Amino acid sequence: MTTTGKQIFTTLESDGTLTVEIAETQFPDPTGNQVLVKMEAAPINPSDLALLTGPSDLENAQYSPGKIVAKMPEPFNSGAKGRHGQRLPVGNEGAGEVIATGDSDMAKALLGKRVACVPGTAFSQYAIADATMCLPLGDISAKDGASAFVNPMTALGFVETAKAEGAPSILHTAAASNLGQMLVRICQEDGVPLVNIVRRQEQADILKGMGAENIVNSCDDDFMNQLRGAIDATDAFFGFDPIGGGQMVDTCFKAMEQVAVKKMSEYSRYGSNQQKKMYIYGRLDLGPTMLTPAYGFGWTLSGWLLTPFLQNAEMETVLRMRQRVLDNLTTTFKSNYTREVTLEGMLEKDAVLQYRQMRTGEKYLVTPWG
Amino acid sequence: MTTTGKQIFTTLESDGTLTVEIAETQFPDPTGNQVLVKMEAAPINPSDLALLTGPSDLENAQYSPGKIVAKMPEPFNSGAKGRHGQRLPVGNEGAGEVIATGDSDMAKALLGKRVACVPGTAFSQYAIADATMCLPLGDISAKDGASAFVNPMTALGFVETAKAEGAPSILHTAAASNLGQMLVRICQEDGVPLVNIVRRQEQADILKGMGAENIVNSCDDDFMNQLRGAIDATDAFFGFDPIGGGQMVDTCFKAMEQVAVKKMSEYSRYGSNQQKKMYIYGRLDLGPTMLTPAYGFGWTLSGWLLTPFLQNAEMETVLRMRQRVLDNLTTTFKSNYTREVTLEGMLEKDAVLQYRQMRTGEKYLVTPWG
Repeated sequence: MTTTGKQIFTTLESDGTLTVEIAETQFPDPTGNQVLVKMEAAPINPSDLALLTGPSDLENAQYSPGKIVAKMPEPFNSGAKGRHGQRLPVGNEGAGEVIATGDSDMAKALLGKRVACVPGTAFSQYAIADATMCLPLGDISAKDGASAFVNPMTALGFVETAKAEGAPSILHTAAASNLGQMLVRICQEDGVPLVNIVRRQEQADILKGMGAENIVNSCDDDFMNQLRGAIDATDAFFGFDPIGGGQMVDTCFKAMEQVAVKKMSEYSRYGSNQQKKMYIYGRLDLGPTMLTPAYGFGWTLSGWLLTPFLQNAEMETVLRMRQRVLDNLTTTFKSNYTREVTLEGMLEKDAVLQYRQMRTGEKYLVTPWG
Repeated sequence: MTTTGKQIFTTLESDGTLTVEIAETQFPDPTGNQVLVKMEAAPINPSDLALLTGPSDLENAQYSPGKIVAKMPEPFNSGAKGRHGQRLPVGNEGAGEVIATGDSDMAKALLGKRVACVPGTAFSQYAIADATMCLPLGDISAKDGASAFVNPMTALGFVETAKAEGAPSILHTAAASNLGQMLVRICQEDGVPLVNIVRRQEQADILKGMGAENIVNSCDDDFMNQLRGAIDATDAFFGFDPIGGGQMVDTCFKAMEQVAVKKMSEYSRYGSNQQKKMYIYGRLDLGPTMLTPAYGFGWTLSGWLLTPFLQNAEMETVLRMRQRVLDNLTTTFKSNYTREVTLEGMLEKDAVLQYRQMRTGEKYLVTPWG
């Protein structure tokens, strides 16, 4: 018995033609530790967009029902050589009902249950998922459980990373995002001082309304001064940045160094001894990251991704994180959605142009059964 | 009894006026673990130039005997705010004879001996140095011992860092420098595969003449191809870069990732799982470091400096490194000098304009007694 349903695929040809389309797919029976999930809801995360559309020209694309054909500009097309010609499923996470399972005990125990899952193929009516990674949702709706993995585990992963590296506090450069708001709540619960960088007054107001402290607006004239003050107040020489391109990381390193230098009694040509560390965990700006020689040699910049973090973490840590998410899915880890779309609606021009902007407070939820 | 002698100082005023000049200085009697060294030779290292002249306008400076007055352009003048108004001694390392000591046993044992030392005030006729950091030179001349610290310990520090981080091989981006040549010899002795990036054919020839392998010329048309081949042959996903500004680090990360991706069986939107690490240990190019989004999130870029490395290293490691330098000072760790200058000669226009270029194979030695 095979199950048939609609699924979204994205294909980039070597000439730079990107096709995103809905196709009828046959889903095999799950085996071993696999489960087959009838998907009810899946969020569109920034991490999905890199694969779904990438930086393709969606303004001038051709739209037809269930299909987008767009051009991928250079250097991004050459940079994505590894995917040329491959028809790729997409959608990191979602939630739905387990309608069939493999024969492992763990898989069989999930039959008939609503679960959050991380199939990597979530923009689909069905998905094969690994039972180990499924979170039974109990009374929680699929909509409330759809974003139980990527943002919650990433935000918790930041706090775990800070603890593991001995950082007493955290700086976050896109602090009003869905993930940023989760981080605010986690840090409040854990008593971890957090510097929140936003770029608009409305964003500052959202965070203020949540009781967040150390909110710094990068559009204010005295931004650098505010930032130094917040770093000084929190000892935040350790931060996370989802922007990537441009000078935000550079600005943070500069402010950190200036705070550290102010505490030195003697000038050193090499800068302060304060170690400064930033992680880039996204690329909202695809331009180059610019690092100026303004903060000596006591700094480290690194990429951060959830999957390698989880692979390197202790099993006990991962289980503790998952339990915390499940226990607080409608509070600490709540996601808000501005719009729900079907698979077809997801490929309509107005929707695509809106969600690919990844604007604060605008998050889409895909409901593949309408 | 005080000792009087000539010493070089560098002063940057807040208006951007940089004065480098020789002054008569009184040197106090050494106390405790200090020794007073009559300096015979001191190299001009790139790490000295950052403080001595920085990126000041030396073409249009005023030169008089024993004095340079130059303008420091922006943003470098503001960036050096910490040193405004301070009259700073300069010269990391050198060699000479111990003519007086403090009363510690270690200090007293050095009396009358020729030593290599790291006073930070080496462009001077005398210097107070810490006995712990002095290396007794025995039969070795001051000229041969003058560069016993910065380059040898840095090159050895690279190999120690690679070992400590589990990297089986090393990539070096300015491979024909004095330090680069030391690294070639160390890696040959230790059997560590080394990728050598040079930017001119003459430099490639120098290294080839030393028996170096994996030499890659960044001016060749097929540079990227050469670089990928060398990384593939050595598994060098770990490198050191003294250039800092521009795209060299980015290029290395790109080539590393391309080598890693070629070995993957399946496309991943996040790039390869191969961790890539680069250290910036100098700023030959003061422009911004540019990092493009072309190699996923599995990378780390960090500053590397000798002093914090030594502070964090085990004492046993540091002693082993020092002994190795002393045992091989005229072979593995030999420095070559193109020109010797007095303190006065060091401040002459033709000399300054030449050594501040830090060109391969052009290294100056300061002999403060002429």
